[in-house]
Amino acid sequence: MTQTNVRRFVEKNAFQKFIVGLIILNSILIGLETSPDYMNAFGFYIDQIDRIILFVFVIEIVLKLYAYGLSFFKSAWNLFDGIVILVSIIPSIGASFAVLRALRILRTLRLLKNIPKLKIIIESLLHAIPSIGWIGVLLVIIFYIFAVIGNNLFGEAYPEYFGSLSDTFFTLFQIMTLESWSSNIARPIIEQMPFATIYFIIFILIATYTTLNIFIAIVVNTMNELHQKSLQEEEKHIKQFVHVEHEQLIDHMNNMQQELTEIKSLLKEQSQSSNNKS
Amino acid sequence: MTQTNVRRFVEKNAFQKFIVGLIILNSILIGLETSPDYMNAFGFYIDQIDRIILFVFVIEIVLKLYAYGLSFFKSAWNLFDGIVILVSIIPSIGASFAVLRALRILRTLRLLKNIPKLKIIIESLLHAIPSIGWIGVLLVIIFYIFAVIGNNLFGEAYPEYFGSLSDTFFTLFQIMTLESWSSNIARPIIEQMPFATIYFIIFILIATYTTLNIFIAIVVNTMNELHQKSLQEEEKHIKQFVHVEHEQLIDHMNNMQQELTEIKSLLKEQSQSSNNKS
Amino acid sequence: MTQTNVRRFVEKNAFQKFIVGLIILNSILIGLETSPDYMNAFGFYIDQIDRIILFVFVIEIVLKLYAYGLSFFKSAWNLFDGIVILVSIIPSIGASFAVLRALRILRTLRLLKNIPKLKIIIESLLHAIPSIGWIGVLLVIIFYIFAVIGNNLFGEAYPEYFGSLSDTFFTLFQIMTLESWSSNIARPIIEQMPFATIYFIIFILIATYTTLNIFIAIVVNTMNELHQKSLQEEEKHIKQFVHVEHEQLIDHMNNMQQELTEIKSLLKEQSQSSNNKS
Amino acid sequence: MTQTNVRRFVEKNAFQKFIVGLIILNSILIGLETSPDYMNAFGFYIDQIDRIILFVFVIEIVLKLYAYGLSFFKSAWNLFDGIVILVSIIPSIGASFAVLRALRILRTLRLLKNIPKLKIIIESLLHAIPSIGWIGVLLVIIFYIFAVIGNNLFGEAYPEYFGSLSDTFFTLFQIMTLESWSSNIARPIIEQMPFATIYFIIFILIATYTTLNIFIAIVVNTMNELHQKSLQEEEKHIKQFVHVEHEQLIDHMNNMQQELTEIKSLLKEQSQSSNNKS
Repeated sequence: MTQTNVRRFVEKNAFQKFIVGLIILNSILIGLETSPDYMNAFGFYIDQIDRIILFVFVIEIVLKLYAYGLSFFKSAWNLFDGIVILVSIIPSIGASFAVLRALRILRTLRLLKNIPKLKIIIESLLHAIPSIGWIGVLLVIIFYIFAVIGNNLFGEAYPEYFGSLSDTFFTLFQIMTLESWSSNIARPIIEQMPFATIYFIIFILIATYTTLNIFIAIVVNTMNELHQKSLQEEEKHIKQFVHVEHEQLIDHMNNMQQELTEIKSLLKEQSQSSNNKS
Repeated sequence: MTQTNVRRFVEKNAFQKFIVGLIILNSILIGLETSPDYMNAFGFYIDQIDRIILFVFVIEIVLKLYAYGLSFFKSAWNLFDGIVILVSIIPSIGASFAVLRALRILRTLRLLKNIPKLKIIIESLLHAIPSIGWIGVLLVIIFYIFAVIGNNLFGEAYPEYFGSLSDTFFTLFQIMTLESWSSNIARPIIEQMPFATIYFIIFILIATYTTLNIFIAIVVNTMNELHQKSLQEEEKHIKQFVHVEHEQLIDHMNNMQQELTEIKSLLKEQSQSSNNKS
Repeated sequence: MTQTNVRRFVEKNAFQKFIVGLIILNSILIGLETSPDYMNAFGFYIDQIDRIILFVFVIEIVLKLYAYGLSFFKSAWNLFDGIVILVSIIPSIGASFAVLRALRILRTLRLLKNIPKLKIIIESLLHAIPSIGWIGVLLVIIFYIFAVIGNNLFGEAYPEYFGSLSDTFFTLFQIMTLESWSSNIARPIIEQMPFATIYFIIFILIATYTTLNIFIAIVVNTMNELHQKSLQEEEKHIKQFVHVEHEQLIDHMNNMQQELTEIKSLLKEQSQSSNNKS
Repeated sequence: MTQTNVRRFVEKNAFQKFIVGLIILNSILIGLETSPDYMNAFGFYIDQIDRIILFVFVIEIVLKLYAYGLSFFKSAWNLFDGIVILVSIIPSIGASFAVLRALRILRTLRLLKNIPKLKIIIESLLHAIPSIGWIGVLLVIIFYIFAVIGNNLFGEAYPEYFGSLSDTFFTLFQIMTLESWSSNIARPIIEQMPFATIYFIIFILIATYTTLNIFIAIVVNTMNELHQKSLQEEEKHIKQFVHVEHEQLIDHMNNMQQELTEIKSLLKEQSQSSNNKS
């Protein structure tokens, strides 16, 4: 088979739908494996089908590598697809640890690439991230400062929440989600150290205000892009309309100009003829 | 009574208001039934009135079926209305189980169809759903992947939260609402398996970011529609204005053109007369 | 003193600032009363000053009533002001119950009317309410339906949360705020009645989606009003600009028209003079 | 070294990057200090490097003071930078208390000034605050009123949550974040005093509605500014386009006017020559 034929084959709509179907079937089977009843009854068959599907996925990626060569790796989506398949082969080799077996469900992620609508949504979700990147950096700095302060102030007395820097990071994340921040974390500490009130309230105000602004940044950016587009559209329409109307005016003027030229030539004729006569 | 007469009757404003009144009365009565005191005192009457109202509802739907024939079923709202009445007849037949009796309150849902303002709101709420449909699919995929992983990793040690796939789904839903996610679910697990931190934090970040984008999608879509409409309105106004102004210019030009034609004819006359003379 | 003089007096900037000062002083004093230490030391003076301030407020409202007559009651803000003063007189008469004494703090609400910036904000907050009125009605219907169903299904087994219709309303409100909805309310019930999962998840999805839409309605409405205004502004500017440009064109044309008229008259003269000559 | 030379030096890109590098290094070192293991192993070196970095920071600010003189203090950012360094010198002098040592991490805040992208974000975050200032005042008034009422009503029975005015403020803040508001705070109180339901529900509705409007104010303001800008852009474009088109028309007209003038002069010549002849 030539490279072109293979490419035509893997780009066929039917082939892509077949792959999507396999991914969904595979996902369902992996889901069924979580039920011991099913595993006792059909475990053997489920395992066999799983292996066959994985084999098809490997074939698919080999075909694509053959069809596109190295340019296959130029698309981030292809890379993502390839890595997901590679990672999910691991548990099929030494499928002894639960953690490793769990990795197989990552194959479901292939749906994100192979269903066009989902691909668009993922791309639009990722598209919004750069606009919030630096607010993210700011949030990390805020977390870091409060983590060091929290660890210094409360680390000894409340090791469960503020024992180490990483514990404190997790606690601050919990406080940012507002989960049990007061009843479990702040109130017991404030009872012993009343000044801690300031720490918690300032952190909550700053952290929620900053995350709020991440959200606002996304809304405003998305709105603004759409808005710019429709304004440019309107601008184009108005300009075209004005232009067409002006063309009419210019047509009129051209007619008048012609009339004027005729009149002038008539006049010149007259004056010439009268000159001639005289 | 002819079909047209019946149709005129059921479309009467007074008839529709009467039905709305009955639905509200019925809803209040069903609410009163939850109070044992009221049921002991007026239980018999409440039951009787309830039966009468249901009878009127059945008559109403029979009249409408007669008036509109099969075209009655073309409107989704009529279907909804009919199903709600049908479902709420069930408990009146064998009204023994609390679960079934509870179904009668669904009649209150008929308000959504029979009060125009509510109908519009429901329609606008439903209108926003398609734009978020595929983000919903994405959320289901995310839930599924994390459910399988969670069940694999924590299922044995924490059967209360991650025992089966459906339990894990419910737990993930709870985590997404951020309710006790850390104090009840994540912290006890992380104490035993520190690597679980990654699982919970990544899930919360992805799930909240995705639901956030559902919300953003609705805001942006609604805004954009309104925006497009008002831009088109403005475009129309400006075009009309420009057009009217141009009409004035063209009028002027027509006048001038006429003057020019007169001048030309005057000139031609002159040259002719001078030619004649000579 | 004539009515006009009194009106001029109560409308003086200095008088209004004096009243605002008194309200703030009064609010601080009522705050101080919550501290037993302060009350033991200065309780007598605080009480005296409080009585004097109330007296001034009563005088103020009497003056305003004299100055404006019945038209005083036409402004909702005046009514609000009057009622707040009336209500806060009650505790001064029989100031024995804590509940009644607490009412005096309502005088602080007068700031909302007497500080212009706050008045504007309150008006804009209230302005947004009509646009969300019917979504509010929808939310009440949703609450009512779920309250009746919840009371029927779980009322007997869990009287603490679903014992009566009003208890259920409060529980649903708590669930809507997502506070302990799962760990305290849903999980214990689901353990006994697994089908309750549907009840809680559907309620949360519907309730949060509907409240979300209240929020979206406010954002979209506010944005749209501002947007319409600035679009109309732009439209006006463009129209003015186009008009001014057209005026120039018309000036030019008028000049040309005049030229044409002159040319025509010249021609007519010529032809007349030539006619005369011949 | 002259003042200009010093200024040129501190404004060098390399120098600023060097300072940013030092801040990051310093932040990491302060983070490492939270780990007892690291402190035991490298504590001495970490302390030494910390002192050197602080010394460089002091030198930096002295250089800047020399370079810019008193105009250094005109920029709020410079002031912020200076205060942060001053505050973080304190723990280096008497570094005995954990609280004081924790202050050193504030040096990390200098990143906000020295990384341009972060500076812009901070400025845009602060930029949004004035627009929400008065809603903040309103929120304080709401808190104050509910704090006094809550302290009066529940202070004696529930001193943990409503014991003093400041305790009540903290409790209201917790309720506003919806954390355990019902299960820990409202339910135990409502069991004893059923009328308290009104207090909690009204507070939650008002507080969340008001904070919601803070958020809406930011979104709407930001959107509106961007929107105005792009509308003005569009207006300018359309005006320019219309103007250019009109210039064309005016060119045409000028041509015609010239023709007319020529025609008139021709006519006048003719009539003169004919007059001369006669």
